[in-house]
Formats: sequence, structure tokens, C-alpha cells
Amino acid sequence: MEPIGSRQAQAKGERTCALIVIGNEILSGKVRDTNAYFAVRELRAVGVALKRIVVVPDELAAIAEEVRYCASRYDVVITSGGVGPTHDDLTVEGVARAFGRRLVVNPQLEQIVCEQFGGASQAAGMKMALTPEGAILNFGGELRYPTVQVENVYMLPGIPQLFEAKLLALKDRLATDPYFMRAIYIRAPESVIAEHLTACLQRFPDLMLGSYPILGNPEYRVKVTLESKDQAYLGAAYEYLMQLLPEGSVVRTE
Amino acid sequence: MEPIGSRQAQAKGERTCALIVIGNEILSGKVRDTNAYFAVRELRAVGVALKRIVVVPDELAAIAEEVRYCASRYDVVITSGGVGPTHDDLTVEGVARAFGRRLVVNPQLEQIVCEQFGGASQAAGMKMALTPEGAILNFGGELRYPTVQVENVYMLPGIPQLFEAKLLALKDRLATDPYFMRAIYIRAPESVIAEHLTACLQRFPDLMLGSYPILGNPEYRVKVTLESKDQAYLGAAYEYLMQLLPEGSVVRTE
Repeated sequence: MEPIGSRQAQAKGERTCALIVIGNEILSGKVRDTNAYFAVRELRAVGVALKRIVVVPDELAAIAEEVRYCASRYDVVITSGGVGPTHDDLTVEGVARAFGRRLVVNPQLEQIVCEQFGGASQAAGMKMALTPEGAILNFGGELRYPTVQVENVYMLPGIPQLFEAKLLALKDRLATDPYFMRAIYIRAPESVIAEHLTACLQRFPDLMLGSYPILGNPEYRVKVTLESKDQAYLGAAYEYLMQLLPEGSVVRTE
Repeated sequence: MEPIGSRQAQAKGERTCALIVIGNEILSGKVRDTNAYFAVRELRAVGVALKRIVVVPDELAAIAEEVRYCASRYDVVITSGGVGPTHDDLTVEGVARAFGRRLVVNPQLEQIVCEQFGGASQAAGMKMALTPEGAILNFGGELRYPTVQVENVYMLPGIPQLFEAKLLALKDRLATDPYFMRAIYIRAPESVIAEHLTACLQRFPDLMLGSYPILGNPEYRVKVTLESKDQAYLGAAYEYLMQLLPEGSVVRTE
């Protein structure tokens, strides 16, 4: 595969990613998307910072606009869906339009399509042999079809089994420095701890600090998470916040 | 509540909507978002066309940019998350920035906050009394806090129980002409039926026609859905497609 760019290398080892899910079936509730949550966890586990998830309809202009927007702002863009043979499969054409490239028949894909489809269905299947000009084919894993790549955009199928297999095959390529995390479970309400979180961030501005209230849990009211790619920095921020929090407010830590 | 605009009334009774989910916890996989799927189905049931779902991080610029983009393109924009008292709650400020409005203390919200929070936590809670200037408060349902609205943007909390209750309170206001749907389950692969779907769309260009392949299902390979707000148009398109499909390819219909 092609080397991965670094358009937004902000923090230490930061690699940013956007995921574009394409499909009316998600937006109309006929299908519940599972690919985004799968991708979120797999990417996080290899240190990739997913910064944006977008679900757009099967419309050429919407796909092209979103791909263009994401490709210029994030290191890696992954699309899910819209790569099959029917009228509502518009991702490949949308990516071509985003980069101002022509759609051309790719000889390697043409051969795979001819082997897979026969007779009357070959004409429709041939749509799957088209790629934007200059596309790269990434073979790997156990799947017959390669993942088509144009610049920093990887086009994955929407069917969950295929999306997951292709993302796993891609994952090692995307891996970068891992995240470290600590969590503090707190029985006080958010309004009580808000000032301490703000103070902690003022002292450790590069910390990723999250505050997540939960309703109806008898054990705790807020889960606070601290994250960094720098383990020592994380440790210092954690100690600082712990001594700020009111006595008796911490239920447990992780 | 304020009347709902009609910026993109494309088809009969069309009312478009965008959903913006705000939160690092979704993008890092700490929390699995359920609000989008809940909103998708509730909105569809009252005929609203959800055209875009976006998940953005807790970053002011990202929130403001996405709100500005969606508010100018869709009739209704719903946000989820980022309305609490902590440092990472930036939605209200993001919406203010999107519309170029100042943040001001809202007297009605101030009173609610004072009743809810006491003592030391009141200062932090006061953040929740701020709204963009000229915001509208929508009371309703059993919740103490109203839903804050600025132009066509409604700000809902991210905690699922609260998001759901507030969306249900809002739903009747958003309702428009319903969608009608038929489904055809097909045992032939997509490549075989692709040309017939295309022919059907050429004859019925306003039809919403979806083709959804599934792997490993012994009963059928593709679910085709036909949708319209015009029941007669839908019926005619359905009959036309049924007579195009190869004999024996249809497993069942709905």
C-alpha cells in the first residue's frame, strides 16, 4: 500500500481519520449501522484519532463534497458502503468526482469480475471494475476483492462482514503510537467537579479530559477519563486531579 | 415553539433534517451512540427526511462549522450532547458562534439552575443558564429543562434518557406527510437485478429505491425497498418492477 500522509500531525504520533458512511438505509432506519462503532474501537486500539463520522445519502454531490472536505483535513479517510453493482452504489463515482478524476476500467478488477460473474449479470458486475483513474488496489486478507484507494481515501464495502474483514486487513498499516487512559468514577454531580476539571486542564493543556454523567446508576454519577499518548504526562495529570477532587467523592479508579 | 422553516422542500411534503452528535466519547469508542438510531426511526415515522448525521469532537470550531453548514441546508437541525456544565460542554457556545450571536444569561434558565443547584456548585451550574442571544425556550414533556432553540437548531442533551424524552416532546411539531414503503426479498444476486432496478427508476424517477444485499442468509440475497410519499405512485412502481424481475427470483414481498 501507499504510505500514509500526515496532513494533521498535531500531537505526538497523532494520526487523524474520518469515516464516511454512505447509505439511505442508515438514514431511514432500515439498517442500523454497526461499521462506525467497529471502526471507532479498532482505530482507537492502534492509536488513530477518529475526528469525524458522517452519514450521507446515496447522492453523488453529497458523497463528493464530503470526501473532498475530509481528504484535505485528515490523514486517512475511510468510506463504508456504496461499492456494489446497483444504481444506488455511487461511492466510487463520488470519490472520482471529489478528486476530479475520470472513471476507468481497471484491468485487474475486470478480471476478478469476469471470474465472479457470468452471463447476463456480467454487464452489471462490470460497474465494479471501474475505479477513479490512478487508483491503487490493496490486496490482503482472505477477500477476493482488493480495497480500492485514491490518495488518502480507502473505499470499504458496507456489508458488515466485509467491512470488518477489510478494516482488519488495513489496521496494521494505520497503526501509530497508542493512547493511555485512566478513569475516575465519582459520586458527586458534574456541577461540583467542573471547576476541578477546568483547573486540571489549565495545568495539563494537552490532556484529553472527558466528563460523562450517567443517570440512574447507584454506584457513581460521573465517569471522568484522562487520556494521553505520553504515559508520564498522563500520570502527573491524574495525580494532580485526584488531589483536587473533594474528599470522599471518588468511588473508584481504573 | 417557532414555526419550522422550509429551506429544502424538494418533494411533496418533504421536510429535511440533519443530526449533529457532539462528543469525543463517541469518536473514541468509550460510549456507543444510541441517539442517532433512535432519532432516525422516530423522525422517519413522522415523515421527516434525515439527510445527514455527523459526529464531531468537543471542539468549538468543529461544532460551529457543522452547525452553520447544516442550518443553511436543512429545515431542522438537532444536536445531541455537549449541553452540561463541564469544560467539554461546548454546544451552546458553538451554536452561538455559528450564528454570530453573543452568549447571554437567560433569566428563566437562571431561575431553574438556582433551584436545581445550591452552594458551591451553583457557579458551575450557571453555565447552563447561558444561551445564544435571542434563543427560544421550548418547554414540554416532563423535563425541568426546556429545549433551547436558535433559528432552526434544537439543542438536546446527550444522555440517552434525556435525549429520547426531549425528542419525543419535539416530534409532533416536526411531523409531516408520512412515507409509504414496499419491500421485495430476492434470491438472485444484485448483479442480476441491477438492470431492472435501473429501468424502474427511469420510469419512476421520484421513487426512493434501495437495494440491500445480505450475506449468509439462506432465504434471500437482496432486499429491495420502494418508498414514496405518494401511495398511488408507489403502487404503480411496485407493479412495474415486479413484472420486470426474473421468474422465480422473488422469495416474498411486504
